[in-house]
Amino acid sequence: MNYCPNCAGTLTFSIPEGDHLPRHICDNCNTIHYSNPKVITGCVPIYQDKVLLCKRAIEPRKGYWTLPAGFMENNESTLEGAMRETREEANAEVKISHLYTITSIVHVNQVQMLYLAYMDKPEYSISSESLEVELFSEEEIPWDELAFPTIKKALTYYFADRKNNHFPLRENVVNRSMQHPKEAV
Amino acid sequence: MNYCPNCAGTLTFSIPEGDHLPRHICDNCNTIHYSNPKVITGCVPIYQDKVLLCKRAIEPRKGYWTLPAGFMENNESTLEGAMRETREEANAEVKISHLYTITSIVHVNQVQMLYLAYMDKPEYSISSESLEVELFSEEEIPWDELAFPTIKKALTYYFADRKNNHFPLRENVVNRSMQHPKEAV
Repeated sequence: MNYCPNCAGTLTFSIPEGDHLPRHICDNCNTIHYSNPKVITGCVPIYQDKVLLCKRAIEPRKGYWTLPAGFMENNESTLEGAMRETREEANAEVKISHLYTITSIVHVNQVQMLYLAYMDKPEYSISSESLEVELFSEEEIPWDELAFPTIKKALTYYFADRKNNHFPLRENVVNRSMQHPKEAV
Repeated sequence: MNYCPNCAGTLTFSIPEGDHLPRHICDNCNTIHYSNPKVITGCVPIYQDKVLLCKRAIEPRKGYWTLPAGFMENNESTLEGAMRETREEANAEVKISHLYTITSIVHVNQVQMLYLAYMDKPEYSISSESLEVELFSEEEIPWDELAFPTIKKALTYYFADRKNNHFPLRENVVNRSMQHPKEAV
């Protein structure tokens, strides 16, 4: 951030009075500009004994498999965002069950939320965001071609929890600037 | 947003190629500027049979009682943010139990997360953000002087769930532009 989005004034990066962190403050109109983490919302879409995965058509991690998820937009709930992303990436409709994983990905300032969700029908197709879309059984999951560690973790939780038919909320903190990911709760 | 924060160029508000929502796009450097919901993180701090509340020293809702909570910052997890806010607003230390409420507050583009948390000692004090800080039993809660509907809801959940000593995740969607808040899950 180099210029004030309000007035195009120059900015100073300093701690405002009564605050504890440096912010971009406009030298001209004095507006304080905050930067905060973003929410990634998505789901683990289940059809019978299979999980729906999408092969990413865009960077980062183009060509790797992922669960449908993306940036939450203004004017929607996290649930609506999860359904929208599944529609956009896989042309699939899901019924949301409940929040299944929540991960603070500290080094990229993101909070990722994945809902457990069910598909009534095996209907899905590729999109501008996905090179391939497929249902995978546990044995078929391309474990070495998954896009992100959080996706691998969510799938690992799912297949383990399925044995007990109990899918509690899984909360984690990942900070790649630390040596080890930290199990939070 | 009137000017590009990168180059101070003028902006056009239109749908980028391959996108589905209008964004601010710089006429000069072509940067696309996204706006996304922010995370509010906080907790329900419990000491024995009481809950810690703070009387807000700042707008909005100055002079009304609330649970310690605020905007999640970059470079922290939602849990760390909840503990930090409790420290800043009430000078109190808490041990986080688990995520207790998550609410998409759609009309203000916020996702509020409140953790159930416990205090080892009844140690707390006012701060620049809180005019008063007090522990309240169920009978003492100032129900008509609570700052926000989500705070009232979290406290209502807590006292109801305490009867069964079972505190499951409570997920809600609130959209004040709709006629009725919608129970999500």
